[in-house]
Amino acid sequence: MKEVKLYDTTLRDGAQTEGISYSVSDKVRIAEKLDHLGIHFIEGGWPGSNPKDMSFFKAARRMKLKNATVVAFGSTRRANTAVAKDVNVRGLLEAGTKIVTIFGKSWDLHVKDVFKVPLEENLKMIGDTVAYLKSKGKTVFYDAEHFFDGYKSNPEYAVKTLFAATDAGAECVILCDTNGGTITSEFIEIVKEVGAKLNCSLGVHCHNDCDMAVANSVAAVEAGCVHVQGTFNGYGERCGNADLVSVIGNLKLKLGIDCITDNKLKELTETSRYIAEISNVKQRENQPFVGNTAFAHKAGVHINAIMKNPITYEHADPHLVGNRRRFLVSELMGKSSILLKAEALELDLTKEAPKTKKILKLLQKLEHEGYHFEAAEGSFELLLKRAFKKYKRFFELEGFKVVTEHRGGKLVSEATIKVKVNKVEEHTAAEGDGPVNALDNALRKALLEFYPTLAEMHLSDFKVRVLEEKVGTAAKVRVLIQSQDAKDSWWTIGVSENIIEASWNALVDSVEYKLLKDRKS
Amino acid sequence: MKEVKLYDTTLRDGAQTEGISYSVSDKVRIAEKLDHLGIHFIEGGWPGSNPKDMSFFKAARRMKLKNATVVAFGSTRRANTAVAKDVNVRGLLEAGTKIVTIFGKSWDLHVKDVFKVPLEENLKMIGDTVAYLKSKGKTVFYDAEHFFDGYKSNPEYAVKTLFAATDAGAECVILCDTNGGTITSEFIEIVKEVGAKLNCSLGVHCHNDCDMAVANSVAAVEAGCVHVQGTFNGYGERCGNADLVSVIGNLKLKLGIDCITDNKLKELTETSRYIAEISNVKQRENQPFVGNTAFAHKAGVHINAIMKNPITYEHADPHLVGNRRRFLVSELMGKSSILLKAEALELDLTKEAPKTKKILKLLQKLEHEGYHFEAAEGSFELLLKRAFKKYKRFFELEGFKVVTEHRGGKLVSEATIKVKVNKVEEHTAAEGDGPVNALDNALRKALLEFYPTLAEMHLSDFKVRVLEEKVGTAAKVRVLIQSQDAKDSWWTIGVSENIIEASWNALVDSVEYKLLKDRKS
Repeated sequence: MKEVKLYDTTLRDGAQTEGISYSVSDKVRIAEKLDHLGIHFIEGGWPGSNPKDMSFFKAARRMKLKNATVVAFGSTRRANTAVAKDVNVRGLLEAGTKIVTIFGKSWDLHVKDVFKVPLEENLKMIGDTVAYLKSKGKTVFYDAEHFFDGYKSNPEYAVKTLFAATDAGAECVILCDTNGGTITSEFIEIVKEVGAKLNCSLGVHCHNDCDMAVANSVAAVEAGCVHVQGTFNGYGERCGNADLVSVIGNLKLKLGIDCITDNKLKELTETSRYIAEISNVKQRENQPFVGNTAFAHKAGVHINAIMKNPITYEHADPHLVGNRRRFLVSELMGKSSILLKAEALELDLTKEAPKTKKILKLLQKLEHEGYHFEAAEGSFELLLKRAFKKYKRFFELEGFKVVTEHRGGKLVSEATIKVKVNKVEEHTAAEGDGPVNALDNALRKALLEFYPTLAEMHLSDFKVRVLEEKVGTAAKVRVLIQSQDAKDSWWTIGVSENIIEASWNALVDSVEYKLLKDRKS
Repeated sequence: MKEVKLYDTTLRDGAQTEGISYSVSDKVRIAEKLDHLGIHFIEGGWPGSNPKDMSFFKAARRMKLKNATVVAFGSTRRANTAVAKDVNVRGLLEAGTKIVTIFGKSWDLHVKDVFKVPLEENLKMIGDTVAYLKSKGKTVFYDAEHFFDGYKSNPEYAVKTLFAATDAGAECVILCDTNGGTITSEFIEIVKEVGAKLNCSLGVHCHNDCDMAVANSVAAVEAGCVHVQGTFNGYGERCGNADLVSVIGNLKLKLGIDCITDNKLKELTETSRYIAEISNVKQRENQPFVGNTAFAHKAGVHINAIMKNPITYEHADPHLVGNRRRFLVSELMGKSSILLKAEALELDLTKEAPKTKKILKLLQKLEHEGYHFEAAEGSFELLLKRAFKKYKRFFELEGFKVVTEHRGGKLVSEATIKVKVNKVEEHTAAEGDGPVNALDNALRKALLEFYPTLAEMHLSDFKVRVLEEKVGTAAKVRVLIQSQDAKDSWWTIGVSENIIEASWNALVDSVEYKLLKDRKS
């Protein structure tokens, strides 16, 4: 079977995403996760471009990787500079990696307009740098920046730049579609033409500006490339890089190429979410293979067919990539999906029962008010269980008050709360980092002596969205709260014109979800 | 030049997206916008599947469209049912459109496992339905559902289903990759094989489960298809449909196919954002061609090259699609981007000035605290102008207090505020839908008599994010506020451990931005 190596550049190209900024420890955690998944090469950064990247390479030397090799990235020497004295090249050696990737120019326009050096000198810059790094014992990968644009502009010169690298001993030459402007048909043609001329391993590096980065990467493998560069979740400047997640899914499930093992493939979804979490970016809901909706079904006819045979509306088994099938809760979904949900919760609901119709009505009413249970399965479970009177509320609210005061440059938030548990009244107060936090603290304080396991849970995420203002209705706020304990995490929802009330509703659900869960186990 | 027709199914397939739910008036607004852009066909829904869709077709008859034709969508008749009596087919006629699209099964597995009818009967269901609708004066498009899976399973039968439609008079046959599981090489091969056998117009309908929907759609056009179906922003079930935005960008700019005019192409970005807004979904930041970061540059070397010649790092001119180039504010960006920003604001900043270094330091400090100016250009402008002492603060805060109280089932938020404007003290109070709204109201009330133009602006979006909790630091909250008046909209930011304080900082910036803007104009 054909061997293909995966080269991840999340830590370098991915860090160019607007809004992403990795600390050294973020980078270490991501590298360890990529290694665990079985990625072959991890590009750690550009030592010399900034001090953070150099710190990562220092930290990398202490990492115990099982599968991956860390790679340092940098440019060819500058024009008219002795390679041994070039600051960038020295940075590459200092990084102390076995493999280095250097990029050079393949596009005559770049050589003339940006470098402003003769075309011949550019070839020497490439050759000198590869040869020097080889002489220092490094394995050298050569990134041919803007190769496709270069080839379209001046094919002869573009190919010469590749020979400059291979003649000097580059192990693998990577054709980069740096601007992401090449469509698949043209892309395949160029890869084939170049492959016929060169006698060395070829790789690709695609950007997504035409929305074709994954298609181009996979087509390149079919056309003979054995090394694919990309980033997790497609992070990267502008429209991003080729998403390695999709590349892996396609290579494994569509081309049968064993780039990672079947067992590791089952960790693809978790790895994608973990990296999104560290990157502090929400995972794209509809991300192929691993997104939250990648195997989610909303249309009634689809759900019916899936229940007969999943391949009717799924191109692959979600379990193979560690994802799961979901049936969405929605006003359009009809009864069969509610029945499925109820079944999973061991609630006895039948298609004809008047209760089913009543729950459907209630759901429609709440969705109309701005609730979205798709994003808050915790609250949805509670709603069903309440409809079935499966539990008695754990407490009653008598009243609360939250004050945030700015005085003398300092800000203080304080909440007072009065609740009743089994006829025992509890009146207490707490401070917090903000009004919601103060309310959360006061609520737990009031309930803790009755329900000690609440000490195990904490709020892990908090999202607020102002709903679209419609004529005649004041703007509503939707609050989503994620809570977790050592075992699980769950989302709950609250909607109101008042953010405090919306938060309160979501908080109460999060606490009830925890208490109900503990009672069962 | 080759003619390609664009067929939008945002209102039908796009509405299958998790979280999207269109009202009839939403649908009308989207249809008008698509017509304005020059889309040829607008699939309005499936009359008979739900009452909302039928209401849309009623409303559509009153719409005055200039370019587009509205199309009704439905399935072939049921098995063993007379076509004239089939409820679904009758719904299609009731919709009253000139064109109808019907979908039928091409995959033998579906016919056997889901329909549970003989393969022959399925062919009749297709033929009967097309012929009947033709006899009623309709133009019929035929969607061959699961065509690619069908062709892979039983090519002979799959092609027979197409002939069933064309023999009965279908105007165009659309090959659907319903499960989105076909990779580009296989896709092209099948389209070519089928095209050679059929003597009628071919279209495609792709889903994005392999991350290749756009590449497949464009490749299909190169292979002879003349009709492309997709949704705006790639909305749709699971991983979504082919994004018509990217399809249009590629057809126009890469293949030179005049599917919409050059002038309309300049409205592509605005159309994508408008539809995202109505769909109540945030536009994907890195969406090709039209996303906020599609032409955004962060790396210093890229910014330098772009300043010499934009095509060095842009595959197309952003103005052609109505988008714009952006240079990002970030700790990595270095001085040259700050200089560019300052220049745009007509601030006199030079590379060597100590002030430049000072501003860079301040930015790094704030980013470390959790500020992200990339998402809040309003606050960034104010920061630069403050550093240049370009304006005197418009007011001083003496103190505020916000109370939210729950008593007897009702929730009330009230803010009191004391500010000083030109040594005049103003102490006032206001209620609001929540604490931030109350604070906003109180602030405006206090300032309105000094600055009457504040009456023109309002808060249009409000986002809250809990920043990643790091060891030893309490969780911080980042608040982004979007404000607008009749002319502009602007984002401002606040960060604090207290959501009220973070909101306050963002509110103050939003007011100052407005006042400064008005003073200039």
